[in-house]
Amino acid sequence: MSGSGVRPGRRRSEESRQAILGAAFDLLGEVGYARLTVEGIAARAGTGKQTVYRWWPGKADVLLEAVTAYAREHIPLPETADRAADLRTFLTATFAAATPRTSDALRALMAEAQIDPAFGERFRETLLRPRREALGAVVDRAREAGLLAPHLTTDTAVDLAFGALWYRLLATGRPLDDELAELLTRTLLR
Amino acid sequence: MSGSGVRPGRRRSEESRQAILGAAFDLLGEVGYARLTVEGIAARAGTGKQTVYRWWPGKADVLLEAVTAYAREHIPLPETADRAADLRTFLTATFAAATPRTSDALRALMAEAQIDPAFGERFRETLLRPRREALGAVVDRAREAGLLAPHLTTDTAVDLAFGALWYRLLATGRPLDDELAELLTRTLLR
Repeated sequence: MSGSGVRPGRRRSEESRQAILGAAFDLLGEVGYARLTVEGIAARAGTGKQTVYRWWPGKADVLLEAVTAYAREHIPLPETADRAADLRTFLTATFAAATPRTSDALRALMAEAQIDPAFGERFRETLLRPRREALGAVVDRAREAGLLAPHLTTDTAVDLAFGALWYRLLATGRPLDDELAELLTRTLLR
Repeated sequence: MSGSGVRPGRRRSEESRQAILGAAFDLLGEVGYARLTVEGIAARAGTGKQTVYRWWPGKADVLLEAVTAYAREHIPLPETADRAADLRTFLTATFAAATPRTSDALRALMAEAQIDPAFGERFRETLLRPRREALGAVVDRAREAGLLAPHLTTDTAVDLAFGALWYRLLATGRPLDDELAELLTRTLLR
């Protein structure tokens, strides 16, 4: 066996996956979710439609992987001695990850999750649950330090923070900014 | 002119509208939003499809009127001397109005609003804005009484309350109950 690590076929495959994820993001911004198609994504990525279907059941699942990967890469889990600062930092990074293109994808995915229950399950498992667990870990450490507002549980604090995020994304379009991160931190902690 | 008030033609017309709104709710619960059609709604209501289209551009707008009318009828605006109790009462009534059938409709409407921007505008104007104004009035009176948490504005308090409601509806399915109303009241007030 060679010591070079990744085999060429595997590397090409990974490049192809990345091209498809990027193409899905780009096309969504250009044509909107209603007119996004697997054919269009494949053409933009320079692959065949069957290549897309080999890995994902449809356009929503391509976007789901693209957004999930983006969140994992761009939202670190802070763990310093200052638990309140950790919460503010995590929320600030979460809101900053809602760029115009990830926001478009998030809105489309939440919509698809309402209309297609099977996709809704994958959406909850792949994106929402890991995000809740990440924020939950930060809130838990604040709670253990005696900082959480006494009438809140970790789960409810997570509902309030992600509720504000999604409501602004889906309903009002009000900004996901540092001010909201600060205000949520003050609301959730005592 | 007769003194009897409503003309028969007008009364029949109103009965027909009400039958269509009720049929839309019923069918949504039975077949789900993806398989709901204007044809199906008309058949269930005992009218023609053209009667539906005379009043609404499509199935989403029928559901929007049904939900908006339900909210208007079932969520009174409390105004007592106890501003904190008023907020709790309003939130409790709002959550109680999220019955299984209105919840199904709300999820479908929020989804449609993401996918069809023109419908999204009507959804915001017809349902979200009046609901924000109603809760905003209750929060404003609490603020004027010096009860609002000092780091919150009325708009932000409304975001947190409706954010929690929509996030549980769309994402987690956790209950919209008296406990959440109580907890939000304690979170938003000082």
